[in-house]
Amino acid sequence: MTTDEFGDRRDIPGMIDAWDRVTGAVPFTINQEIPGMLHAKLVRSLSAHARIAAIRVDRARRVPGVVTVLTGAQLAARRDISPYFGPFLRDQPILAENKVRFVGEPVVAVAAETIESAEEAANLVEVEYEDLPAVFDPVAAFEEGSPILHEEPPKMSSLFVDVTMRNRVGTNVANVYSIRKGDIEKGFAEADHIFEDVFSSPAVQHVPLETHVCVASVARGSITVWASTQTPHVVRAQLAEIFGLPLSSVRVIVSTLGGGYGAKTYPKIEPVTAVLALVAQRPVRLHLTREEEFVTVTKHAATVRMKTGLRRDGTITARQSTAYFNTGAYADVGPRVIVWGGFGQGGPYRIPNLFVDTYSMYTNTPPAGAFRGFGINQTAWAHEVHIDMIAERLGMDPLELRMKNVLEEGEAFATGDPVENWHSKELLQSVAENIGWTYPVAPHRNGSRIRAKGLSVSASRAIPLAVSTAAVKMNIDGSVNVLSSSVEMGQGIQTALALLAAEALTVAPSQVHVSEVDTDVTPYDQQSSASRGTYSMGAAVQAAADEVKGQLLQLASEELEVSPADLEVVAGHVRVKGSPDRCLSFSEIVRKSRSGNLMGQGRYRAGGALDPDTGLSLGPGPGHWHQAAGAAEVEVDIETGHVDVLRFNAAVFAGRVINRVQAELQTEGNVAFGVSQALFEEMVFDHGQLQNTNLGDYMISSIKDMPQQLNVTLLEYPERSEIHGVGETALPSIMPAIANAIYNATGVRVTDLPVTPEKVLRGLRLNGNGAS
Amino acid sequence: MTTDEFGDRRDIPGMIDAWDRVTGAVPFTINQEIPGMLHAKLVRSLSAHARIAAIRVDRARRVPGVVTVLTGAQLAARRDISPYFGPFLRDQPILAENKVRFVGEPVVAVAAETIESAEEAANLVEVEYEDLPAVFDPVAAFEEGSPILHEEPPKMSSLFVDVTMRNRVGTNVANVYSIRKGDIEKGFAEADHIFEDVFSSPAVQHVPLETHVCVASVARGSITVWASTQTPHVVRAQLAEIFGLPLSSVRVIVSTLGGGYGAKTYPKIEPVTAVLALVAQRPVRLHLTREEEFVTVTKHAATVRMKTGLRRDGTITARQSTAYFNTGAYADVGPRVIVWGGFGQGGPYRIPNLFVDTYSMYTNTPPAGAFRGFGINQTAWAHEVHIDMIAERLGMDPLELRMKNVLEEGEAFATGDPVENWHSKELLQSVAENIGWTYPVAPHRNGSRIRAKGLSVSASRAIPLAVSTAAVKMNIDGSVNVLSSSVEMGQGIQTALALLAAEALTVAPSQVHVSEVDTDVTPYDQQSSASRGTYSMGAAVQAAADEVKGQLLQLASEELEVSPADLEVVAGHVRVKGSPDRCLSFSEIVRKSRSGNLMGQGRYRAGGALDPDTGLSLGPGPGHWHQAAGAAEVEVDIETGHVDVLRFNAAVFAGRVINRVQAELQTEGNVAFGVSQALFEEMVFDHGQLQNTNLGDYMISSIKDMPQQLNVTLLEYPERSEIHGVGETALPSIMPAIANAIYNATGVRVTDLPVTPEKVLRGLRLNGNGAS
Repeated sequence: MTTDEFGDRRDIPGMIDAWDRVTGAVPFTINQEIPGMLHAKLVRSLSAHARIAAIRVDRARRVPGVVTVLTGAQLAARRDISPYFGPFLRDQPILAENKVRFVGEPVVAVAAETIESAEEAANLVEVEYEDLPAVFDPVAAFEEGSPILHEEPPKMSSLFVDVTMRNRVGTNVANVYSIRKGDIEKGFAEADHIFEDVFSSPAVQHVPLETHVCVASVARGSITVWASTQTPHVVRAQLAEIFGLPLSSVRVIVSTLGGGYGAKTYPKIEPVTAVLALVAQRPVRLHLTREEEFVTVTKHAATVRMKTGLRRDGTITARQSTAYFNTGAYADVGPRVIVWGGFGQGGPYRIPNLFVDTYSMYTNTPPAGAFRGFGINQTAWAHEVHIDMIAERLGMDPLELRMKNVLEEGEAFATGDPVENWHSKELLQSVAENIGWTYPVAPHRNGSRIRAKGLSVSASRAIPLAVSTAAVKMNIDGSVNVLSSSVEMGQGIQTALALLAAEALTVAPSQVHVSEVDTDVTPYDQQSSASRGTYSMGAAVQAAADEVKGQLLQLASEELEVSPADLEVVAGHVRVKGSPDRCLSFSEIVRKSRSGNLMGQGRYRAGGALDPDTGLSLGPGPGHWHQAAGAAEVEVDIETGHVDVLRFNAAVFAGRVINRVQAELQTEGNVAFGVSQALFEEMVFDHGQLQNTNLGDYMISSIKDMPQQLNVTLLEYPERSEIHGVGETALPSIMPAIANAIYNATGVRVTDLPVTPEKVLRGLRLNGNGAS
Repeated sequence: MTTDEFGDRRDIPGMIDAWDRVTGAVPFTINQEIPGMLHAKLVRSLSAHARIAAIRVDRARRVPGVVTVLTGAQLAARRDISPYFGPFLRDQPILAENKVRFVGEPVVAVAAETIESAEEAANLVEVEYEDLPAVFDPVAAFEEGSPILHEEPPKMSSLFVDVTMRNRVGTNVANVYSIRKGDIEKGFAEADHIFEDVFSSPAVQHVPLETHVCVASVARGSITVWASTQTPHVVRAQLAEIFGLPLSSVRVIVSTLGGGYGAKTYPKIEPVTAVLALVAQRPVRLHLTREEEFVTVTKHAATVRMKTGLRRDGTITARQSTAYFNTGAYADVGPRVIVWGGFGQGGPYRIPNLFVDTYSMYTNTPPAGAFRGFGINQTAWAHEVHIDMIAERLGMDPLELRMKNVLEEGEAFATGDPVENWHSKELLQSVAENIGWTYPVAPHRNGSRIRAKGLSVSASRAIPLAVSTAAVKMNIDGSVNVLSSSVEMGQGIQTALALLAAEALTVAPSQVHVSEVDTDVTPYDQQSSASRGTYSMGAAVQAAADEVKGQLLQLASEELEVSPADLEVVAGHVRVKGSPDRCLSFSEIVRKSRSGNLMGQGRYRAGGALDPDTGLSLGPGPGHWHQAAGAAEVEVDIETGHVDVLRFNAAVFAGRVINRVQAELQTEGNVAFGVSQALFEEMVFDHGQLQNTNLGDYMISSIKDMPQQLNVTLLEYPERSEIHGVGETALPSIMPAIANAIYNATGVRVTDLPVTPEKVLRGLRLNGNGAS
C-alpha cells in the first residue's frame, strides 16, 4: 500500500476532510434529522412476477404511531403525481401498481412516528399475489415466448437525451446498441483463424458502507430532499417531473456520501420518500437495510458471445460479438450501460470489421444500474480472457498479441472517435516489466501451491456531451469559496477542486472551501460518476477561478494605474512586473473594490455528438479515454482451489495528477473491487429470490485478500489541460489479469466470474490435473 | 387593516411563503437539530458591576450529562481563540473574564446532553462577586467621577470601517458624533425666539416571537453555525476573527427568522455557542429564554436636550442639540446608532446653523443595539414634540410651522448630502388631509372622553457604502433560482426578490425560487437591516437577471441567426421583433446552449463617502431617504388616563411598490410598534436589575390597541430605479403624532416615553384639569 501522510486542511492536502472523517465529524445524510420527521418502511414483493390481487392495509393502519399507509393504486389515483420514474424510460412505478416484477419490489409504503411502528405496520400489510411466469436470464428473456415484463410501451423520460432509445415494445428488450463497422463477412474471410467463446459475469453489489437514505420535506409547491445521491441534478429533474414543478422549486441537498460506486446514480428511493412526505404532510426519512439495498440496484449480469478472426500473424481482422445485459425489472440506466458494454466489446483494439449487438434485457430480477466500470467490466472480462485463449491457441505470447493489436494515437475507437492521448502500449509495457512478465509462461510450484502471472489491458471513455459548471467566490479576506454540485463520496473531489482553485489563484489550499451540493444554489453538474469529476468539474472550477483572476487583475490595474498586461499574480497578490513593491494583496483589492466579494463562473462541456439514429458517435468524443493495464501474480493452492493474489501492478493513464495520494488510493480501491469480483462476488438467485442477502453470506474481499504487493503506476503527461479521472479506470483490467494468471498457474480456464475455489477444483479435476 | 388575498406561490403573490407559514412548514432555526447536539445554558451575572472573585464549577461538572463547563478565564487562556467580540469595538467578552458589567451578563457556559442537565448544572455554578460602583443613566455616565466600565482601550474590530470611531479611553464614551454646520451663535442671534426642551425615551424590547437561537458545529479548521441572524456575513466575519480562520472556512446558514427588528443584527450568542462547540468537540445548541432575550439586546434609551431658535415668522435659524444614548455595557452597534441619532436631531428640517453632539455612553445595563428606526425614533420623538411645543408657544399651526421648515428637493440634509426624491410636504399634506386636520385644534369631548388629533413628520437615510450582491441561475426548464444572502424575517424579502426577478425575466413568479442564506454559496450582502433589502438586494437581483437576459438574447441570436437588437423578450420567450413565430422559449435556449444552466450576477453599491475625521458625509449619500408623516386621532379618558388611538394615517415615500400587500403590512407593523412604544413599552430597571422580565410584566400593544382605522399611504413615483424600503420608515413618526394628539386633547405634555395613563393623570392633576 502507498504510505503517505494525510495532510490536514491547514497544510498540504492528502484529503481535505481526513481529520473530520477519522473523528466522525463528516455530515452524512444518514444523520440528517428534521423536526416532526416520520420514518418509512417499504413492504416488498415476495413474488418475482405476479398480478397483485389484493392489498389489505387495515391492520397496518391501526398500529399506533402510523400516519400513512400508501399503495400504488392510491398513488395512481392522484392527479398531482406522475407515479412512474426512471432516467431514460419512466417504466418504474414508485409503488407497484397492478403487478410486481421482482422479489423485493416496493408494493406498499408506511410512514410512522417511529421506525418500530413503521416496521410493525409493514409486517401487518397483507398482499395477495397471482403468480405469473417469470424469466431471470437475459438470454432466455430474449427468446420468443418468454414471459414479457412490460406489456405497455413506457413513457420516455425527459431527463436524458444523449442515448438513442430502441426499446422494442412487446419484447423484453429495453434498448439495443449496435455497431456495424466495416464488412464483417469480408473480415472473417480474411482471417486464418476464427475463435468463438462465451463469457459471463454475475450481478454483484456495490456495497457502499452507507446504504441508500433519503429525507424529504414537501411544502406547498416546493420539495426539499436530503439525498445520498451521486446525481443531485438528475434527482431534482426527476422529482420536478413527478410532482409537476419547476426545477427551481425542487431542492436537493447532498452531503458527503458514505460511498457510491454507481449505486447512487439516478433516482432510487427519493421518489417514494417524497410522495410519502406529500401524502403524510410531514417530513419523511427512509433508510434502507442492507437486505433492501441488495434488491435496489445491482451491477448488470452479462453474457457475451465473442467471435474473433485473426491472420496467422495475430492481426485481428474481424469481430462479431453479442452481449445480453441483465437490466432487471426496470430500465434505470441500463439503456446507456449497454452503449459502453457495446463499444467495449471492441476493447482497446484495432478491429477493422466489427459487428456488435448489445441488449439491455428486462428480467424478473432487481434493477441493475451503473456500477464502477460501467459496462466495461463485463466486456473487458470477455475480450481479455478471450485474447489470452486465442494467444494460447495461436502459440503466441499474449503480451505480443495485445501489443500487435492495441490502438495507437490517432486511430479510431470502435465508436468512430479518434483516440487521443492513447497509451495502451506504454501501459502494457509498464505492467509487464513491473511484474517481470516472461513468455512462455513458467509457473512456479511449491508443494500444492503454484504461482503464475497474467496480463490484461482495457479502455473506456468518458460521457460525451456532459456539462459541468462551477462558480468561485473570493471573499473580502482573499479566501475562496467554490460552488460546485460535485458530490464528495470519498473519492476526494473536494480536495481536488480546492487544489485546482488554489493553484489557479495562487493561494494556499487552506484558503479554499468547496461547497456541499445544494441544487438551489450550486451550479449545474450532470452527475458525479464516470470518473468525470476532477477533469470536468475541475476544468469548470479552473475557468471560474481564472475569471476571478481576470477581475483581480482588472481591479488592480485601475488601482495601480498599470495595464493588466504589466501585472502578474503571485502568491495571493497582484504585483507590477519587475516592481515587486508595487503590490496589492487579493484582500486589499477586494476591499478597495467595494464589491463585497468577487465571483466568477466556469463551464466544461465534454465533446461529442451522437447519431440519433444509430446512437453512434458523429464527431470527436471526449479526448479523455480511460486506459489501464493490469498484471497479476497469483498463487493457487491446487488442494483447496484457494487463490492468493500475491502481486498486482495497475497502470492507468492519469494525464496530470492533482492529488497523488488520492489518485493512488482510487486505483488501489479499484484493485480491491477487482480482486473481490475476480474471486468472490456473486448474487445468487433461486427463482428470482436472492439467496445471499447480507454481508455474512455475500462475500467481498477483505484487507487480507489484498495483494501483498500492490504497485500503482500513474502515467502522466502533465500539461495543464490533461487531467484524467481515475475513479474506475483500472477496474475492468483487474478480473481478467487475475483469471489469466490462474489459468497460467493451473491450466484451469474459467469464463464465468467469479473464479471460485470450487470452479478451480472442478477445472483441475476435468483437466485430470488435480492435487496429487 | 388592509384586506387583500395572500396568493399562493403558484399564483399572484402576497407573500410567497404564506401557506407554509400558516401550516407551520417554514423552517425556523429553533427547529434545527443535528445528531449528537448538546444543549447550552448560560450562567449570568447577578451584579451590575463587580469583580469576579471566584467561580466554583465542581458541583456543576458532576451533574450527569454535563460535557463542558466553560469560564471566561478558561477561554482567555486558550491560544486558538480571541475571546472578545463586537462589530465596531471588540469590547464584549464571550464570557466575562475579570469583571461583570451588567446584570445578566454571561459568566459561565454549560453544555450538556439535555437542556435539563445544562440548567441544573448552571444553577449549581457559584460565582462570588465583589461589587463595584455602577452607573445606569447615560447622562450620569458622562459626568466626571462616574464609575468607569472599560478601563482598557478596546481593540477595534476589523468588521466595519464605515463609522469614524472616537471612543474616549478612560471615560464611558464609546463614540461621539458631532455636526458643526454654520455659525451657531450667529444663528441664535438671528432668532426672535429660542426654545429649549429635554426629551427622553426608555430602553425597550424588540420582542421577536423567536428569541435568539444558534446551533454551532466546529470541525477541524472549519465552523458551521445555523443562526437566527439578520447579519449572516457579519457573523461569519466575527467568527473568522474569533477563531483565526479564513472567511471561506466559516459557514453561516440562516433560515427564515421569527422576527428580527434589529435585535438579530451583529453577533450576539453565536460566539459563545461556537466556542462551546469547539471545547466540547460536539455540536451545541443555545436558545435563549424570553428572560435572557431581555438582557441580550435593547433599544437605546436616550436623553435629548434640544434648543431651537426661530424668527418671528417661524423660520428656524439655529439648533443646538445634545443627546446621550444609553449603549449599555458593550458597544455593539451603538457607535453607529449615534450617527443616525446625531443627524436625526436636525430632523427633516432646513436648519442653516446646526450643532449636534451625540454620545454613545457605556452604562451598567444590558447592551443596546440596532432597533427598527435606528436612532431616529429617539430623535424624532424629541424634534416632533419639540416643534409642536414651539408652535403652541408661537401661536402657530404646527402643520404650518412644519411646512415652512421642512426640506425641499435639492436642499441639503444635516449630513450635507443633497436630498433627492424628497417629499416631506406631500406626506404631511396627505396625512393632514386624511385625518381632517384643522387649526386651531378643536378637541371633541364626550363625557370623560376627549378626542383630538396630532401630527408629525420624520426622515432617515439608508446605510451609505453598503453593498449587496446576488446571482441568478436559470435552469434548463427556464425556471429561476435566485442566490441571495438577504434574510427572510417576515418582511417578505423572498417575495419581493422573486417578483423582481420574475419581472426582469418575464416569467411567472412561481417559476422563481429565492435561496436560503448560506455564506458558503450565497453572494455577499452587508446585512438585512435598515430597510435596505428590497432596494439594494432588489437592484442586485435585477442586475443579475438582466445579465441572464443578455445571455438569452445572445444565445437566441446565434440560434436564430438574428442580431440581438432585433430580438425581444416576451413572456419567457425570445422572439424576433415583428415575427412572433420565430421564437424560442427560455428552456429551448438553455437546452440548446448545452450550458447546464445560465448564471448571471449583479451588484448594488450604495453611494456616499465619509470624512474619516468627522464621520460626516463627504459626498452624495444614498438617494434613498426614508420619509414619513403621521397623523393620529386619539381619545383620552380623563378619568382613567387611558388612551385609545382611534385613527392613524401613516404616509411613507415608497418610490415604486413591488408588493403592495407587503408594503402596506410593513407600514401597519410600524404603527403597531409605534402605538406600543407611545403608550406601553418601557424596560424598568432597579439598580441595573430589570424588573419586568417577561411578557406578563412588560407590556406591548395587542391587536385591541391598534387604531380602529388605519390608513396607509404609499407615495409612489414608479420609475424603475426608485424602489424604497419601508420596513421602518413610518415608525419614528408614530410616537410623537400620538403624544401630540394626547396633548391636543388634554393639555398634558409628556416628554418622556411612554405616555402612560399615570403620566396623563398626573399631568391633568398638575394642570388642575383632572376629571370633574
